[in-house]
Amino acid sequence: MKPLSGFRDLLPGDYARRRYLTEGWRDVARRYGFVEFDGPTLESLELYQKKNSGGEILTQLYQFTDRGDRTVALRPEMTPTLARIVAAHDREFSKPLRWFNVGSCFRYERQQRGRLREFLQLNCDLLGERSVTADAEVIALLIDLLRHFGFGPNDVTIRLSDRLAWHDFLEQFGIKKENTADFLNVVDKMEREPQEKTEEKISLLQHSGLTVDKLRDFMASPRIPVLEPLLEELEARGLRDFIKPDLSIVRGLAYYTGVVFEAFALKGNLRAVAGGGRYDRLIHDLSNGAVTLPAVGFGMGDAVMLEFLKEVPRATDREASFHQATAACQVYLVIADEAQRAHAIRLAQQLRDAGVRVAFSLAPERVGKQFSAAENVGATFAVMIGAEWPQLKVKRLSSREEVSIPVESLSTWLSSEIS
Amino acid sequence: MKPLSGFRDLLPGDYARRRYLTEGWRDVARRYGFVEFDGPTLESLELYQKKNSGGEILTQLYQFTDRGDRTVALRPEMTPTLARIVAAHDREFSKPLRWFNVGSCFRYERQQRGRLREFLQLNCDLLGERSVTADAEVIALLIDLLRHFGFGPNDVTIRLSDRLAWHDFLEQFGIKKENTADFLNVVDKMEREPQEKTEEKISLLQHSGLTVDKLRDFMASPRIPVLEPLLEELEARGLRDFIKPDLSIVRGLAYYTGVVFEAFALKGNLRAVAGGGRYDRLIHDLSNGAVTLPAVGFGMGDAVMLEFLKEVPRATDREASFHQATAACQVYLVIADEAQRAHAIRLAQQLRDAGVRVAFSLAPERVGKQFSAAENVGATFAVMIGAEWPQLKVKRLSSREEVSIPVESLSTWLSSEIS
Repeated sequence: MKPLSGFRDLLPGDYARRRYLTEGWRDVARRYGFVEFDGPTLESLELYQKKNSGGEILTQLYQFTDRGDRTVALRPEMTPTLARIVAAHDREFSKPLRWFNVGSCFRYERQQRGRLREFLQLNCDLLGERSVTADAEVIALLIDLLRHFGFGPNDVTIRLSDRLAWHDFLEQFGIKKENTADFLNVVDKMEREPQEKTEEKISLLQHSGLTVDKLRDFMASPRIPVLEPLLEELEARGLRDFIKPDLSIVRGLAYYTGVVFEAFALKGNLRAVAGGGRYDRLIHDLSNGAVTLPAVGFGMGDAVMLEFLKEVPRATDREASFHQATAACQVYLVIADEAQRAHAIRLAQQLRDAGVRVAFSLAPERVGKQFSAAENVGATFAVMIGAEWPQLKVKRLSSREEVSIPVESLSTWLSSEIS
Repeated sequence: MKPLSGFRDLLPGDYARRRYLTEGWRDVARRYGFVEFDGPTLESLELYQKKNSGGEILTQLYQFTDRGDRTVALRPEMTPTLARIVAAHDREFSKPLRWFNVGSCFRYERQQRGRLREFLQLNCDLLGERSVTADAEVIALLIDLLRHFGFGPNDVTIRLSDRLAWHDFLEQFGIKKENTADFLNVVDKMEREPQEKTEEKISLLQHSGLTVDKLRDFMASPRIPVLEPLLEELEARGLRDFIKPDLSIVRGLAYYTGVVFEAFALKGNLRAVAGGGRYDRLIHDLSNGAVTLPAVGFGMGDAVMLEFLKEVPRATDREASFHQATAACQVYLVIADEAQRAHAIRLAQQLRDAGVRVAFSLAPERVGKQFSAAENVGATFAVMIGAEWPQLKVKRLSSREEVSIPVESLSTWLSSEIS
């Protein structure tokens, strides 16, 4: 009776929480002129095996052979699909593109708390624009997504780095381009590993004179010159408070080519709630050189955000008032006299036509039980239909206030009461 | 660069059409007090192999063995997942449940026009109520879903049948319970096959004295007594115009036990746009008898509905006005003087904070090109920021009307203009 390990059943209460999140995502993304697209849940395996799109993810793919002998995979992330679609339709759109998607992704991860095998992800990508303003625009969107839910600079910080700074550093020690990904993997993990382990890993890479101390010195440098123009842009937008330059952020994905960043939770369970960066070569590589389109974007998962919303009081309060305002049922019709059932059903139909959310008992039931049902479904009003029809009693369930209203006035009365 | 055969890339225009559909679904379902839930895209294969949930679908499953040696399948329909979840959480909810879901389903179907291998489906189910009013409530919801999009009784009809009528008929000819599914499959296909084929299929089943003529006579019977109470309920709701009793509707799925119905398009490409019925034993069977919950529900797919919307002028018009009212971008900032860019960016930030959908050119660009970009993204207004800052020129792009406004009044002015 249980879902597969790592998969979720979302009961209506859970779903309402997730919808609060996803509709907030959509609302803010649209303010930035972003438009939504979607792609298949299943893709050809090849899409993920191509140069640059891979990394650790390849070992976590849900891959199989379909009934038509194609090797396919459930998408582990959205960016390769986006790149494929944009490359195929390049000529149909003038640039830049501001595209977003909310969709399920799948990774066969080892099971541990909070690690899901199917999760929902928001992806926002700005394509066809190489300027630092594009980087700033995308990071501003990420920050506004967090502000929208009630998070401030004391709750979350954007750690900002740039792969270009790393490439310069690596060149200095003669580390070859093809070893960059391996090296950045060492950096990505060094915070969580003992120094000896890092030293051992570095010694396995070809280099001249690199030490862990030199690495730490570089990462501790107070200024990152390549990031200055971006920091100025974010300052101009009044968002500098949220930003923390931090070279230790390198991101796991192999395809990033410039700025990389992650939104990091400073409250509750410290962790990344979103991450992204610039990937100017992915579309070129996936299209075998047919289309070149610089791009910058990020992803934000639902599971971590839903946890984070519970950990910051202002975010929790904001969410609670949203749920209060969007109860499943606004009006419950209590049929106190079964002889009036036909009237009640017609009334339900009329109110629903007017956009009101209405429920009623589908079989004869004691009045007390009908009132319990009204409370169970979160109704704001119970409307009692009895022998005094067409006169109705309307009870506000939270305060127990009661008024008597003729049926022909109900719709108008409700529309002024339900804001 | 293409998606897998039978899968879709939804460009932003396509996505907007689908969102019009899915948000309409949600709006109407909520008016009936239905609440949304969700379940995993991937389930244990066993869930679909259990008694009663199968049929043709089992031959179309995307099934495979995962990295942990579990046999799993992409869900081909939502009902088994719903039944699993409801059975597992039976005690947490008072009945009846009014639950709906909008989710992707997957079937490896032979490729033909309009047949997709991944499609989105709305499922609405009312659980825990055996009365005919529950059937009426669900069918009324289905009809209102169609009315919402602009379809009337001349565009679509609900063909209504009942498996109980069929069971009585089959008993008469000594056809055994275990052969019911096979027999109904013959009925399901007989409209599309030559009579000889039907005769041949019937002769293979064990029966006493059944002929195709007797079968046709039964299906042509003007009254279906078992359906009368339901028809009266729908008449009382003012929805009788949409209904056509029709015994030839049996539905493919094996688990239906009572009323079955489908919404059938009378315009354009005649076909079913939704279908469902009562399934009082599925939850009992899936839970190995632990939970017994009568249920009635239906599914509606996105692909057929999106086609149907194009075929009925009133529906097409209604959709067009929706898209007009929800353009991706409301305000495009035209930066006529690069010296004012920082002002423009701060203004963008302020307007977005106020909920306005804003875009602007991320790199210096000729004014003419910026106006083209504004039209490309469907902006309602272009706001020109030039040397006369803080005075702005605001142009309504549809009519070319222009007004001059100081920046501090812009937000108020826009909020009265953008309804």
